[in-house]
Amino acid sequence: MPAVKHMKWTGWGVEGLGFHHEDKPGLRPFVQEVIDVDLDEPSAPGLTLEQLPIADPIITEDLLGALRGAVGADNVLSDALERIVHTYGKSIRDLLRLRAGDIPRVPDVVVYPADEAQVQLVVDLAVDADAVLIPFGGGSNISGSLQPREEETRTVISLDLGRLNRVLDVDADSGLARIQAGALGPDLEAQLTARGWTLGHFPDSFTHSTLGGWVATRSSGMQSDKYGDIADITKGLRVVLPGRLLEVRAVPSSSTGPSVKEMILGSEGRLGVITEVTAQVHRIPQERLILGYLFPSFEAGVAAMQDISASDAHPSVTRVSDAGETRFSFATRKKSTGVSVSGLVSKGLMKVLAARGWDLDKVCLSFVGHEGAPTYVARDRAIVKSIITKHGGISLGKGPGVLYDQKKFDTPYIRDFLLDRGAAADVSETAAPWSKLVPLYDNVMVNAKQAFAQLGVTGWIMCHLSHSAHSGACLYFTFAFRHDGVDPIAQYEVVKHAIQQTFVDSGGTLSHHHSVGTEHAQWLEQDLSAPGVAMITGLFAAMDPGQNLNPGKIITDPVRAGAAAV
Amino acid sequence: MPAVKHMKWTGWGVEGLGFHHEDKPGLRPFVQEVIDVDLDEPSAPGLTLEQLPIADPIITEDLLGALRGAVGADNVLSDALERIVHTYGKSIRDLLRLRAGDIPRVPDVVVYPADEAQVQLVVDLAVDADAVLIPFGGGSNISGSLQPREEETRTVISLDLGRLNRVLDVDADSGLARIQAGALGPDLEAQLTARGWTLGHFPDSFTHSTLGGWVATRSSGMQSDKYGDIADITKGLRVVLPGRLLEVRAVPSSSTGPSVKEMILGSEGRLGVITEVTAQVHRIPQERLILGYLFPSFEAGVAAMQDISASDAHPSVTRVSDAGETRFSFATRKKSTGVSVSGLVSKGLMKVLAARGWDLDKVCLSFVGHEGAPTYVARDRAIVKSIITKHGGISLGKGPGVLYDQKKFDTPYIRDFLLDRGAAADVSETAAPWSKLVPLYDNVMVNAKQAFAQLGVTGWIMCHLSHSAHSGACLYFTFAFRHDGVDPIAQYEVVKHAIQQTFVDSGGTLSHHHSVGTEHAQWLEQDLSAPGVAMITGLFAAMDPGQNLNPGKIITDPVRAGAAAV
Repeated sequence: MPAVKHMKWTGWGVEGLGFHHEDKPGLRPFVQEVIDVDLDEPSAPGLTLEQLPIADPIITEDLLGALRGAVGADNVLSDALERIVHTYGKSIRDLLRLRAGDIPRVPDVVVYPADEAQVQLVVDLAVDADAVLIPFGGGSNISGSLQPREEETRTVISLDLGRLNRVLDVDADSGLARIQAGALGPDLEAQLTARGWTLGHFPDSFTHSTLGGWVATRSSGMQSDKYGDIADITKGLRVVLPGRLLEVRAVPSSSTGPSVKEMILGSEGRLGVITEVTAQVHRIPQERLILGYLFPSFEAGVAAMQDISASDAHPSVTRVSDAGETRFSFATRKKSTGVSVSGLVSKGLMKVLAARGWDLDKVCLSFVGHEGAPTYVARDRAIVKSIITKHGGISLGKGPGVLYDQKKFDTPYIRDFLLDRGAAADVSETAAPWSKLVPLYDNVMVNAKQAFAQLGVTGWIMCHLSHSAHSGACLYFTFAFRHDGVDPIAQYEVVKHAIQQTFVDSGGTLSHHHSVGTEHAQWLEQDLSAPGVAMITGLFAAMDPGQNLNPGKIITDPVRAGAAAV
Repeated sequence: MPAVKHMKWTGWGVEGLGFHHEDKPGLRPFVQEVIDVDLDEPSAPGLTLEQLPIADPIITEDLLGALRGAVGADNVLSDALERIVHTYGKSIRDLLRLRAGDIPRVPDVVVYPADEAQVQLVVDLAVDADAVLIPFGGGSNISGSLQPREEETRTVISLDLGRLNRVLDVDADSGLARIQAGALGPDLEAQLTARGWTLGHFPDSFTHSTLGGWVATRSSGMQSDKYGDIADITKGLRVVLPGRLLEVRAVPSSSTGPSVKEMILGSEGRLGVITEVTAQVHRIPQERLILGYLFPSFEAGVAAMQDISASDAHPSVTRVSDAGETRFSFATRKKSTGVSVSGLVSKGLMKVLAARGWDLDKVCLSFVGHEGAPTYVARDRAIVKSIITKHGGISLGKGPGVLYDQKKFDTPYIRDFLLDRGAAADVSETAAPWSKLVPLYDNVMVNAKQAFAQLGVTGWIMCHLSHSAHSGACLYFTFAFRHDGVDPIAQYEVVKHAIQQTFVDSGGTLSHHHSVGTEHAQWLEQDLSAPGVAMITGLFAAMDPGQNLNPGKIITDPVRAGAAAV
C-alpha cells in the first residue's frame, strides 16, 4: 500500500478530526436564528461504505497487468475505499451524493506512480488502451473536476500523485524551488521552511491540497496580495503528455507567443499530468503581522481596501467581512460573550463606537497583514492605518489577527458539522473590478435571498472581500440553509445558480480561484464569450483527440463512443 | 487619406528627425576604435523608393471594391509608399533588405478601418476571399512579425489600426482604462495624463509602437519593475476573430481554465485582430526619481539588483550596464570630456575610486528608479542605497538619471546612423533566473566574439540588465560590426545565431519582450519543448484552419496552396 494519507470519504479532513460547538457558546443560538437548525439535533446519517452501490471495475486484465508492471502491484488499488475516495472532491454536492449513494461512475482503478517516469508509463498505457485518466492531488476540489462522467463506458484510471511529494531543489540565488506536484501544502511548506524558505501560498484548502492541484485549478492563497496567485508563483513546469514531456523552463518572463504555461494553469488534467513545478519562493520574513480593524459598514471597508490597493503600501493580506460574516466570526469564538460586536470589543471601545453613532448590526471585521523587515512593516502599517482611519475604521490591534490565523483552515469542518445536522452549506466566489464590487455584492444578496424564499427555506448568506489587486478584488460568499431532506441537491442548485448567474451578470468572473470543473462550466461562455470557449475547446481537441484526459471538465464536450473496455 | 503618420520607410522615426554626432565629441573616436567605422565617411546609399522593384498588387476588383465599401475608398491604399511602409518592421534585416531592394512580397493593399465594426468587416472579407490579413500597429517590430511570406500567392492585406487611437474610458475606481489598440505610446499617454493617469509602459519603441502591438508581442517597458509587463497590465481584451468578437472581461484574476487572455498575448495576429484593451492604469506618482550608481564590475551590479529584487524595496527601474555599454553611454554624452569614466565623475570621486582600487575599464553604470509619495521614495531609496553600498557601489545622484531619461528613446536613431556608415547593429535580449545570468552573459560574450572572429570583422557587443523580477531579470545585448557591404544579412545571421543559441543553451528564453515572429521561430522548440510548440500549433490550427491570419509567424507552418487570387 502506498503511504499516501487521504481525507475521509465522508467529508473534510482525516478521520478523528472534526468540529464541535460545546466550547463556542455563541454558535448554537446563532445557527438556530439564521438557518433554523438545532446543533444538538443530528440529522439522519448517510450510508456506510458497505452500503454504497459500487459497481465492479471496468478494466481488462491486460491493462491491469500493464499498470501493475508500470508502478508495482502494490501501487495499483481497486478496493472500495480507494475507489470511493477518488470519485469526488469535497463540494457539498459531492458529500450529498456520497451520503445518498449516488455514485453512477467511480474510477475503476487507482494508480500511485512513484515518479515522473512512471507517470509517463501510466499516461501512455491509458491512451493506448483508450482509457480515461483523471489526475488526483489532495481531493479537495469543490467544482466537480475529479468525477468521472456518468456516461463513461471506458476504463477510468485515477492517477494519484501522492508519492511525488518532495522539494527537489532550491535555487537560492533565484528564489526558485523545484517541487513535485503531489506535495500537500503542509509537506512542501515544512520542507521549504527547513531550508529557510516559504512558497507563501495558503489557500483555505491548504492542509489537504497539492501544488499540482493548485496549478491545475488556478488556486489563490490568503497572502496572494504579496505572493501572487499560483499563476504568478509558477515559473516552470514539467507536464506528462501522451508520449512526451512538456517542459516549460523557469524564466521570470518571456515573449514566446501565446503562453504555454498559462494554458497548463487551470487545465484540470485535460492537457496532461503536472509532475513538477518550479515555483517562486521567498525567504521567511523577519516579521509577520495581521492586524484587526472594524468598519462601520461593508462599503466603508471595501472603499478602504480599494484605497490601500492604489497606495504605496504592499500588504500581504487584505480582508473585510460583511456584517453577516462578522457576526458568524464572533459566534464561533471560544468563550464568546455573545454573537454581536459587543462580545469582541472592550467597554471603552463600545463607548467610542456609540459616540460615533455606529449601527452595531452593520459593523464589519477586517484584517490586514504585513510581512517584511520591522521598519518596512511599521511603515506599511502606518499607511494602511491612515487610510482605514479616513474611511471611519478603528484598529483592534493584534488579537483578532492571531485568532484568524488559528482558525483560517477550519471552515470546511464547520460545513460538514452542519451537514450532519440537516443544513447544506457551500461557497461561491468571484472577482471583479473595484467599481463593480459593491453593486455585485448587493445583487448577490438580493438574488440569494430570493432563491431562499423561492425554496421556502431559512437561509443565510455572508461574504468577505479578499485577494486585493490594483484593479479589483475577490468576493467570497458562504451560504447555508436548512434543506428539506428530500432533494437537497436540487435545492442547492437553485441557490448556487442564483449566485453564480449574478456574478457573471454583474461583471464578475465565474470564479476567482475555484476552477471551472463541471460545477461552473455552464457559465464559461458568458464569462469568456463564445470565441474564448472555442479557443479552449480547440486546444483540448488538438492535444487530446481521443478524449482520454479528464474529459467533460471545463468544456462539456459530448461523450465519444469508446470501445467497450471489457 | 487617413491621418495616420508612419515612420519613414528607410529607418526609424519620422522624416526630418535623426541622429548626428557633431555635439558628441567622444563618439567618433569610440566608434572608430570598437568597430573600425569612421562616422565622417558615409557608405553607399540604398535604393530610392522609385528604384524598388515593387510587384503589382495581387487583388481582385471584387475584393478591392468590397474593402472600399467596408472602410471607405479613401482608406484603402495601394500606392508604393504605403505598401512598402507596411512590408517590414524595423529590424536590421528589414532595413538591409529595403536598401537592397530585397522585397519578394509586399502587401497588396493597406486598409485603415475607423472602428471595431469596420475591422470585423475587413477580417470577414479577408477570410471569405481566402486572403491573408496582417495587422499593423506602429511598425516597430524587429522580429519579422509583419512581413508577408515570400511564397504567399494569395492577396495580402495589411490592416493598419492607426485610426483606432483613443482612450475610450477610465474607470477611476478600478484604475482601468479602455483604450483602442491602435493608439501609439505618446498618444495614449497624453490622453491618460490629461485625466491624471499613466499606463506606466515605456518600451524603447514607445514613440512608434501601439498598445495592440505591445499586447500582440508581449512587450515590456522600462518601468516594468513597478508596473509589470504588458501581460500584467492587460486586464480585458476585445479581439476581432473571423465572424465573431472575442471579449475577455476585465477582472483582476480568474480561474476559468487555460487563460484565453494569455493566448491572445503574444499571438502576433495569428488568432485575430486586437481592437481594444482594458488596461490597468495608475495615478501619476507624486515623485519620480531615477538615481545613478557606479559598480566596480558587472557581476557586482547584477548581485546588487538580485538583492534588491528580494528586498522590501519596490523600485520602478533597475538597470545595470556592463563596462562596454557604460563606455558607450559616456561616448554619446554631449560635451563629454572623454570616453572613459573619468569624463563623468568629479575629481573627488575619482580619488575615491582610485583609493578603492577600482579598475576603471570595468566600471559599470547603473540606474534605479523610484516612484510614489516622497516618504515612500525616501524609504525605498534608503533600502536600495544600503544594498548597493554592500556590493561596493557608489551613488552618482540624480544627474545621470536625468540624462538617461532624456536619451532613453534614442538608440534606434543611432543604429540607423551607423547603418548609413557601413555598420550593422542590432539587439537581442533574453531573460533567465538570477543564478544563470552571469554565466549566460559570459557565454554570450565569448560566442559573439567568436562569431565576429569567424567573420573576420571588427565587432562590438555590450549589454545591460533590466526588468528585474523576484526570480530573475532581462539581459539586453546590443551588437554592431563593420559589415562587408556584400552580404551583410548573412554576416548578421552568424552573429545573431550565436547569441540566440547561447540564450537557450544557457537557460534563458529566446526573448524577454521582442516576440518570436520569424526571426526567433527556429529557437521556439528549444525554448518551449516540442509539446509546447504543438500546443501553440494546435491552437492556431483550430482557430485559423485556412491560414488567413498572419501565417508563418511564431510557428513556421507550411505554406498551403491558395486559390490564385486574380
